[in-house]
Formats: sequence, C-alpha cells, structure tokens
Amino acid sequence: MLYKLIKTNDFVNIATFVKKYEMIEQNTICAISTASGNGAIALIRLSGSEAYSIVSKIFQSKNDSLDLSKVKPQTIHFGTISDGETIIDEVLLSIFKAPNTFTGENIVEISCHGSIYIQQKILQLLLKNGAQLAQPGEFTQRAYMNGKMDLSQAEAVADLIASTNAAAHKIAMNQMRGGFSNELKKLRAELLQFISLIELELDFSEEDVEFADRTQLLALINKIETIISALIKSFELGNAIKNGVPVAIVGEPNVGKSTLLNAILNEDKAIVSDIAGTTRDAIEDTFNYNGVAFRFIDTAGLRETTDTIESLGIERTYQKINQAKVVLALFDAIDSNEKISLELLKIFEKAGEDKQVILVRNKVDTSENDIVKIDNNNLFSQVNISAKNKQNIDELLEEIGKAIRLDSLENNEVIVSNIRHMEALSLAFEALARAKDGMQMGISNDFLAMDIREVIHHLAGITGDEISTDEILGNIFGHFCIGK
Amino acid sequence: MLYKLIKTNDFVNIATFVKKYEMIEQNTICAISTASGNGAIALIRLSGSEAYSIVSKIFQSKNDSLDLSKVKPQTIHFGTISDGETIIDEVLLSIFKAPNTFTGENIVEISCHGSIYIQQKILQLLLKNGAQLAQPGEFTQRAYMNGKMDLSQAEAVADLIASTNAAAHKIAMNQMRGGFSNELKKLRAELLQFISLIELELDFSEEDVEFADRTQLLALINKIETIISALIKSFELGNAIKNGVPVAIVGEPNVGKSTLLNAILNEDKAIVSDIAGTTRDAIEDTFNYNGVAFRFIDTAGLRETTDTIESLGIERTYQKINQAKVVLALFDAIDSNEKISLELLKIFEKAGEDKQVILVRNKVDTSENDIVKIDNNNLFSQVNISAKNKQNIDELLEEIGKAIRLDSLENNEVIVSNIRHMEALSLAFEALARAKDGMQMGISNDFLAMDIREVIHHLAGITGDEISTDEILGNIFGHFCIGK
Repeated sequence: MLYKLIKTNDFVNIATFVKKYEMIEQNTICAISTASGNGAIALIRLSGSEAYSIVSKIFQSKNDSLDLSKVKPQTIHFGTISDGETIIDEVLLSIFKAPNTFTGENIVEISCHGSIYIQQKILQLLLKNGAQLAQPGEFTQRAYMNGKMDLSQAEAVADLIASTNAAAHKIAMNQMRGGFSNELKKLRAELLQFISLIELELDFSEEDVEFADRTQLLALINKIETIISALIKSFELGNAIKNGVPVAIVGEPNVGKSTLLNAILNEDKAIVSDIAGTTRDAIEDTFNYNGVAFRFIDTAGLRETTDTIESLGIERTYQKINQAKVVLALFDAIDSNEKISLELLKIFEKAGEDKQVILVRNKVDTSENDIVKIDNNNLFSQVNISAKNKQNIDELLEEIGKAIRLDSLENNEVIVSNIRHMEALSLAFEALARAKDGMQMGISNDFLAMDIREVIHHLAGITGDEISTDEILGNIFGHFCIGK
Repeated sequence: MLYKLIKTNDFVNIATFVKKYEMIEQNTICAISTASGNGAIALIRLSGSEAYSIVSKIFQSKNDSLDLSKVKPQTIHFGTISDGETIIDEVLLSIFKAPNTFTGENIVEISCHGSIYIQQKILQLLLKNGAQLAQPGEFTQRAYMNGKMDLSQAEAVADLIASTNAAAHKIAMNQMRGGFSNELKKLRAELLQFISLIELELDFSEEDVEFADRTQLLALINKIETIISALIKSFELGNAIKNGVPVAIVGEPNVGKSTLLNAILNEDKAIVSDIAGTTRDAIEDTFNYNGVAFRFIDTAGLRETTDTIESLGIERTYQKINQAKVVLALFDAIDSNEKISLELLKIFEKAGEDKQVILVRNKVDTSENDIVKIDNNNLFSQVNISAKNKQNIDELLEEIGKAIRLDSLENNEVIVSNIRHMEALSLAFEALARAKDGMQMGISNDFLAMDIREVIHHLAGITGDEISTDEILGNIFGHFCIGK
C-alpha cells in the first residue's frame, strides 16, 4: 500500500503523504451505494481496516462461530442485522479482502431490503459502531491513494456513472480502463528518455560529449507536440459528448419550436424505451441520437420580442447561437421567404464557421409549395419538415447528427473530456513550445531540461503521479547501463 | 422443488400446478433490483435454470476457463460485460446455486456501475440473450412457488420494503420471519387434532365410540375463537401502522392549521435526518412519532365555508372526522370560548368513542390568558400551543401518540396488517361460530367436520398452503398410532 510513496525520494512529500495516508487509514467509511429511494435491494458499503469488526458487532449468522476476518475473500454470507433488541433485516454480506479490492482496503458490502427505513437504520448502526460516513467519491479516492488506479482513471469512474449515452459511456470506459493513462505514459516515457540524455550531457559536461542528437530531439518534440495538440483538439468533441451537444432552436413564437422539440424527444423516447420498464428517469430537453446526447438550449428570449425577426435583440440571438454547436433556424413554411432577414443570415454565416446551422422550414403540411429554398446562397443545409405530423424528422436528426463526427471515437482514439486534463495538456503544450523555441535558439541544457520537466510535470498531474529525480535517474541507468 | 406438490394428492390440482410450474421454470427472469436512477452501484438480478448460461454469453472473466456452473455457490467473480464489440462495464457477479437461494432457483446478481445507461444496456443484453423481464414481485412469487416461504411471508417482503417507520417495519419483519405463519400453524394443528377426532368417530360410527370429549372440544373452539378474534382486532392497529395513522386537523381558516403541520413536520424531519445525507426522499404530510407514521388528512373543505363554525357543512366535517383516528380540533386562543359550538362538541363527543379527539388552543402567544378551557365537560384532552413559536408541540405529539398503544407490538404479539389476511380471518371466525353453534345444537359429526374444515381452509389460504385429506389422515395416524 505504500507503493506510491516508495517511488519518490522527496522526504517532505513522504512525510505529508504518510500523515495524510495514516489519517485516512484509521477511518472505516460507509455509505449507501445504490440510488436513493425505495428498491427491492439496497447496497451499503464499508471500506477500511475495521470493516469486518464493525459489521461483526451488528451481524448475526446462523453459524455462531463465523469470523468475518477468517472467511474466504469474495464470498457471500447470509444472516441478520440487529440493533441488539430488534432485528433490522435479513441481509447478505459480501466479503472482500485487502489488497485485492476496489479501494485496496477490506470491504464489506451489505445487501439489504431496499426500504429507506432499513437503509437508514443500518447506516445509523454502522456509524454508531465506529464507521464514518464516506465523503462523495471517497471510495474511489482511496482506490487512487492505494495505487489501485491513477487520477484520470478515478475521474473516469465518476464520468462512467454519469454517462447517459453510448458515446459518453465509451469515452469514460476507455479512460477508466487506462486508455488515456497509457497514452500519457508513452508520452512521459519519451520525454524521460529525452531528459535523460540531456542530463547525462550535464554530468559529462566537462568532457564535452553530446549524447543527444539535436535533430532527433527536435523530431521527438515535434512528434509529441502533434500528439498533445491532437489531444487538446479532441476536447471539443469530448466535452460536447460528455455534457451533451448544445442545440439551439431559434425561431419566432408559433413557428413550431416546442412541437419540433416534442417530435424529436418522442423519437428519442421511442428508441430508449423499446423495452417496457427500463426507462424510469426521463431527462427533459435532452435527446439521444446515434448514441450522442444533444442538449436543447432554451431560446425563450426570442418570445419577448415583437412580430418581426428584424426587431429581435440581435445580441441576444447571437448569444444563444454562440452557446450552441448546432443551430436550428426554424421558419414557417408559408412566410419563410419574406421573414428571413439579411441580418439574421449574416449572423448564421458567421456562426456557421464552427457550427452546424440548419434552416428548418416547418409546417410544410400547410403550404402548397414545399420546395421553397430559404437560403439562396446555399451556405446552409435546409430541411423541410412538419413537426406536427412528424414528417422528415429522421432527415433532420441525420442532419443534426452531422455536427458530431464520431470517427475518432469509433477508431478507439483517446478523447479528452475532462477540463482539468485539457488545462494540464494546454500548459504542457506551452512548455513544450518553449522547449522547442529554446532548442532552436540554442539555450543551455539546464534550461531545456527545466522546460521538459515542466511538460512531464503537467502530464503527470493528469494521472496524479509524482515526478522525482529518482525516476529520471532510474530511466538513465536502466536504459543505458553505463555500469558505473 | 416439487415439495409443495407432493404434499397434496389432488391430481387435477397437481396437473395445473405442474403445468404452471413448468411454464415458469422454463423462463429465466431478470430485473434491476436497486432503486431507479443513478447511483454508485446498481444490482441486476437473474433467476432461473438458464441464469448461468445467459450471463456466460456476455460476461468475460480474466480467467478464461471460468465456468459459472462449476464455481462454488455464494462466491463473487470480477470481469467485464460486453455486447461483443464494446465493453459495457466492469462488474462483480454473485453466484447463488439452487436450491439454497432466495427463489430456490439459480441466481446471478450483477453488480455494475450505477449509470442508468449501463443498467439499461446490461438489461437489454440479458433480454437479447434469452432472459425475460421479471414481473413485479416475480422473484418472491418464485420463492413461494418453490416452497422457500409461505404466502404471508411473501406478502411481508413487500411490506418490509415499503415500511417507512419502526412500527410498520417490526410488523413486516415479524411476519416475514414467520411469526404470523407460526401462529396460524399452531391454530391449524389444534383444529386438525379436533377434526381428526371427529373423523375417527365417523370411521367407527357403527361402534358408537366417542373419541372426542365434547366439553374439551367446546373449550378448544372457545380458545381458538378468542385467538382469531384477537388477530382480527389487531388489524385496526396493524392497518393504522401500515398505512399511517390518519390525523385530521379540523379548524377554521387562519386558525393556524398549516403552521401547526409545519411545526410537527419540522420536528419529525429533525429526528429523521440527524445524520446528514441519509434522508433523501421526503414524504409530504406524514410525520413519524415514536416510530409510528401519522398521516395528515387534508380538511381543506372547511376553507370553502363562511366565517362561523355553525355554518360549516356539518356532514363534511363529520366525514373528515370519520376517516381519522386522531382529530385535532384547532381553535384560536383569542376567540375559542365563543366560537366552539355545541353542535361541533356533539360531533366530537360521538367521534370520541373510537377516536382520540384533542382540542388544540393555538396562538397562546397572542392571548393574555392561557388557561382558558374549551370543553367544560372535560370529555376531551386539551393542549394549548403556539404553532408559530413551536410552543408545546412536544406535549401535543405526546397526546397524539396516545392514540396508538404499542404494548402488543412491544410484547412481540402477532399483529395483522394485511387486509387479505383480515378477510380470511373473518371468514374463519364466521365458520368457527357456525361450528360452535352447531355443536351446541348437537349437529352430526359430518357437518361439524365441514365447518371446521372451512376454518382450516381460510387459515390455510393466508399462508397459501393446500389442504388435503392426506394431511388430515397423516395427523390421525401420526398422533394416534392405532396400528391398523
């Protein structure tokens, strides 16, 4: 369990670490781990060195001599939980033994009847007998502290639980299973190799040797720069997938905005709930299409204005459009030719650079001519629909779907979806650029090493690893075997 | 698993039973067993002969050769669930082997990350691979079908999960653990003894022997009558505890009804949530006191009337009062002397026979004289409060609490809380009364046996047991050992 500490020889850090670690170690935490509310079954989880002894105080097996600390790991035991006077429930205990557990500590999971009363009662009993209520994420935090996963994996656990669609789920799952960590590990290994060479030159500086071929080093920096740049760029997609792709439906009142949203949501609900009883929590105003969540941005502000598009608060419309990745500009089939202003088209034109703008001609069922083209400059795609009759909704969804290209996701490329990671990558990128400039300007090895160390530092921050000179030294001697 | 069937020799019933049973046997059911919504962990449960093979199709362990049908029962196994292309989740499987399981069938519990998306995805995979979505209560139904518990115990499982307070929980737990079943078993044993003796006389009718002492038989019937009568009577308490004790707050508008309710509910909330994070579902308008739920009956109807109590729709008030077990008659401290009408007091007088009527003089903080007595006849208790200042609320709660005497609960007596049981007990009671009358009138043994058989039939209906002549015969020969 002190694995993480042994890697570093920074003694101040070790002291802090050990202190922090021991403090945590003393506590055995517990929490209700299943969703809140009544269910058939609920799970209450304990983790810590006292997990067995605390549960033993309130658990009674048929087998009087059952000793939780002596049972085989990953076994299940039936019995009752009692407060000394009253039997609270008949439960199943799942026993997990350190270190081969999620947290790395002893874990007991109590599977009880899912009444809120029983859940609370058992939790209260555990607290009374010495357990502490777990902080949010504390089980996963302990898993990280005990070296069961790195920081970015720990963060992915939270993303995984929050994921509501296939795309977000896939990014989180990939990250939890170490995809991103491995990518970073590779980068770090290459940078460590780089820095080793530089520092070796420093050691032999009096002898004026050049271990590191400058052309090769520059090529390496360029390569890493490309990779980090791609990771940073992937954040746009990752963030959109994680938080839902923002879609603004812009349009005058009574143009059919709500009807369109309902038509889309119904489509979606039909897909999600093709099995009765599976969908129990409806998320309003978010629809999934092709495994991606699209999030509706309320443009109710437009309703406050009077009757022509020209009179809209242009600034306000622009703001709404600005937040969106997809803009659905909704027009009435009957009067769409006259109503669309040059000004609005200009906004769309500007927005269109990094957005998917779709002109939607609604209420085609009421219009005789359904081939009216709104945008004569052919800048934007146009879909003619009848939201009321759910006509051409599939075509519109397909058009909306184009805003998100999932190639990189399908190719299992690493996609960054966490803003902390994105910031760390940006800082790493900046430091890398400084190193590159410095190298081209011929700065001294000391300064070059400093910049590269900063890159490593930021990358290591993502996975929560400590960087020590031990590691750098280990890399030198491990790879080069100078035999000194 | 055919245990229940072997007990009966009713061949038509056996055929139906076996057919029904085989039909069920062929299905392997699955369901999300934890509460709906996002949580850290969710449990998906399968039960049936194909549980292992279905899960094996989508589960991948690190150990390639893991065969779920060969692992030890009550063990836990880590691995991934995949749809063939994508890994859906890292999960823990709990393996339970028939017949020593809750349902009596093979059970697999999948403990996955609690994202709704993952829960649905795994459920869909199970359905795709041959499992069927479980009907509500189907796991418990199978437990009953396979003789793991009787009907009243199965019903108690549902009550247990629904219980929101100590009293309801205790009744359900006692029933689930067989307290009620044992009481009924005792009664049935005594009645079977009775009927055995009667039927023995029938067998030897030509020899004119009397195996059964008529005085002893009558004493036995009287004893059983007393027990059944007590069980029926316990239903009033059981029902009130199970569904919440109805409390009507009757009073004119602005007399402080809502303020009083808030004052009471706040008291309750403070008790329930003394541990942060445990109370996540607030139940409106129900408050727990001393482990019993009290349910507020809305008397908003009174608000529709004009300004004096005399003009109230007396009928309406009476209805509200009639539904309640506790009536809080709320008066304003300032004008309570004049406002209380003789007519209303008469209603309370009538209601008071089986209800707890409490006169509540509110707003004592605004009145100079706080010892005003409303009911000069001393028929009802009176509590003077200030709902606004939460003054004397504890005293009022104590008075409300007197409506429910928990002695029988504390003495672990059997309390009937299920209306089906109550109805069966009532029918049993009627048949018993007929038997008693018949016996005193000297009816023939045939008819006497018929009445007693009906009593047994109704009692057996509660636990869902079949009554057969086999059982009766078994009782005769088992006890008497005539050696024929």
